[in-house]
Amino acid sequence: MAKNVFYAQSGGVTSVINATACGVIETVRKSRSLGKVLAGRNGIIGALKEELLDTSKESPRAIAALRHTPGGAFGSCRYKLSSAAGNETEYRRLIEVFKAHDITAFLYNGGGDSQDTANKVSIVSRKLGYPITCIGIPKTVDNDLPLTDSCPGFGSVAKYVAVSTMEAGLDVASMAASSTKVFILEVMGRHAGWIAAAAGLARQSPTSPPHIILFPEIAFEQEKFLVRVKRTVDRVGYCVVVASEGAQYADGVFLGAANDVVNAVVNDAANVASEKDAFGHTQLGGLAPNLAAMIRRTQGYKCHWSVADYLQRAARHIASATDVEQAYAMGRAAVEFVLAGKDAVMPVIIRERDAPYQWKIGEVSLSRVANIEKQLPRDFISRDGFGITAKARRYLEPLIQGEDYPPYHQGLPRYVRLKQKSVPKKLPTFNL
Amino acid sequence: MAKNVFYAQSGGVTSVINATACGVIETVRKSRSLGKVLAGRNGIIGALKEELLDTSKESPRAIAALRHTPGGAFGSCRYKLSSAAGNETEYRRLIEVFKAHDITAFLYNGGGDSQDTANKVSIVSRKLGYPITCIGIPKTVDNDLPLTDSCPGFGSVAKYVAVSTMEAGLDVASMAASSTKVFILEVMGRHAGWIAAAAGLARQSPTSPPHIILFPEIAFEQEKFLVRVKRTVDRVGYCVVVASEGAQYADGVFLGAANDVVNAVVNDAANVASEKDAFGHTQLGGLAPNLAAMIRRTQGYKCHWSVADYLQRAARHIASATDVEQAYAMGRAAVEFVLAGKDAVMPVIIRERDAPYQWKIGEVSLSRVANIEKQLPRDFISRDGFGITAKARRYLEPLIQGEDYPPYHQGLPRYVRLKQKSVPKKLPTFNL
Repeated sequence: MAKNVFYAQSGGVTSVINATACGVIETVRKSRSLGKVLAGRNGIIGALKEELLDTSKESPRAIAALRHTPGGAFGSCRYKLSSAAGNETEYRRLIEVFKAHDITAFLYNGGGDSQDTANKVSIVSRKLGYPITCIGIPKTVDNDLPLTDSCPGFGSVAKYVAVSTMEAGLDVASMAASSTKVFILEVMGRHAGWIAAAAGLARQSPTSPPHIILFPEIAFEQEKFLVRVKRTVDRVGYCVVVASEGAQYADGVFLGAANDVVNAVVNDAANVASEKDAFGHTQLGGLAPNLAAMIRRTQGYKCHWSVADYLQRAARHIASATDVEQAYAMGRAAVEFVLAGKDAVMPVIIRERDAPYQWKIGEVSLSRVANIEKQLPRDFISRDGFGITAKARRYLEPLIQGEDYPPYHQGLPRYVRLKQKSVPKKLPTFNL
Repeated sequence: MAKNVFYAQSGGVTSVINATACGVIETVRKSRSLGKVLAGRNGIIGALKEELLDTSKESPRAIAALRHTPGGAFGSCRYKLSSAAGNETEYRRLIEVFKAHDITAFLYNGGGDSQDTANKVSIVSRKLGYPITCIGIPKTVDNDLPLTDSCPGFGSVAKYVAVSTMEAGLDVASMAASSTKVFILEVMGRHAGWIAAAAGLARQSPTSPPHIILFPEIAFEQEKFLVRVKRTVDRVGYCVVVASEGAQYADGVFLGAANDVVNAVVNDAANVASEKDAFGHTQLGGLAPNLAAMIRRTQGYKCHWSVADYLQRAARHIASATDVEQAYAMGRAAVEFVLAGKDAVMPVIIRERDAPYQWKIGEVSLSRVANIEKQLPRDFISRDGFGITAKARRYLEPLIQGEDYPPYHQGLPRYVRLKQKSVPKKLPTFNL
């Protein structure tokens, strides 16, 4: 039997998730006992619909180029398998598809939800008598998975945010005497302030930006914030604020949600209702303009604001070399776990030293990872709630080390588009 | 006499305006006949207030590092000299300051407004019997100065926008099957669509992003736009929109202004009034969220949006090598013009060939540059108004060629902060 490996990308993509795919495919190609890597078109949806992409049709050069190509080369998805007790229809379908295509290993590259799914596939497959080796591979820009020191994807967004904060800070510093006094950068991180914290790395002196970081972990107090903005402008001449999209008031109302409410009232009440995704999360955004309006209204400062959104997690051009290396290593380790006969585990990054940074690969059971979100520890946030501590800096600094520039052609990165040849279907259609 | 040179940065800064400063200072240092470069702290305001920075106190290494440092190293400003007929108070003050500090040349690094000021200083100084050599040096990310083929600062923002569009496009392409279908990137360009047009360089096939570009030069028609969004999602699976902040309806109302109005109505009517800068320009922003709300409301697509704002013009980490070289060359040329005894002129970039790109430095009279804005020619915009033509591509492509990475230390660019030693004041205080 061919012993094919199924690989799928899940959830929000990152600038290095394809480096993990590269690690998986190159390692399988080198192995003697494994067959092809078949990838799910659009993640797990591809497995359910039997839409499998045959990576063996891609040249070694194209696969190598995945290492420097952002986004999800096979398509990702936000789709949670139905988990009502006793309802295993979707899990059974997955296993049917795997069986039909001689797939004996399932590698699922995603966040906490995905590790949960991989764990359930392992359990159900054994129950059905067709045991699948299930390996989770960590991925999330949010850095909120437990049990791994950091998550592939985070180091690069951290580097992007720190560099952008430093650069925009130099810009507003030049303009502040007669024009813009406050700059606000909104970054990702719905429930955890890791990305916002990374902006703190840009701060190289007591007067340099960012001057204020807003974390989801610290309840927003408008008065305290505005006093700090004013004090910073008085002291430094300008103020750079980096705000996590998840920043919220003590009652749990997001700073970004308020704006949607305002727009909805004026424009269309249906607007807000439509802003939830498949997991029932409210789609955020609008925090930066809200803060800017608040500052202008109360203090009259001219503000500029930026919302980085997808730019931050797609910015392969400024990826962290450390992150790229770890993302690749996670893919390679997942295949090595398969070869070693392991099951229902996830490779993790274990930190051995901060400086010089040393790390190695470990493993944890998927059952321990599932659906736990790791917030920023309180001792990573300064006492006043607006900055990061030396401890946070020691943790974050190694993760942004090194540049790993993509090759360029005609002034633009040479990112690869795969051929994406489909494997012929063998089973009846399955309705999601 | 010392024959010092006064240099000032004006208006919005760029990621390469300091490369121009580097060209100025290094060329003056090499000359035998010129003294020091004295820079205006915060641009022309520094000259009026006699706040001069002595660049001779900076090390050769610090000056060399200006070439790769974004922002305005001496501070810039948005300040227009009063120009009421007959009121030459401010011009007279400038000349007094120049006289007091043995300044015989005035180099003004800015956009159209600044070239106008430099021209007037030349005229008034001759009238007052203390003739100052006045040289304008072009700078603007907006690329809207006439008579020069392109403007230093533009090539780098063009590269940033093209790279970011490409990267975010790969991200949304991965997510579109089950989640985000539309991504909107708002870029700068209040009156001219040059920056938005540059995003078009990312498009490498008929299906690749950006699918829609909104230019200030083309009146926005909501129905036509929405039809195009839907058709693109149907055809490609997703849609990437790049919108200039200056995009507007046929009646001249900005797409970004509408949102401010909404917020102002709900929050505080005073808000809108405060959004004008020193030149009476309305501060824009909010276009991307407006478009996203419009699309969600009418079509139900999940949208993500990003506002690049200062990030785009400060992004020295992804600067165009061509742009850096030209910015430096403009600074060097300005000093060479001084040495050659020229006055009231500005160095310009003359294009000799598109491919391979060849350019040289020319000169134009300041009186011809002042206060003219160069819009995107109609034949650079595709017939449907949503894209760029082959002609635009031929023009734009050379400007983003080459990478010119800053040096890194500990994972972050090593940007220089100058000592900024002030020259002792000699004159009485002057009130602005």
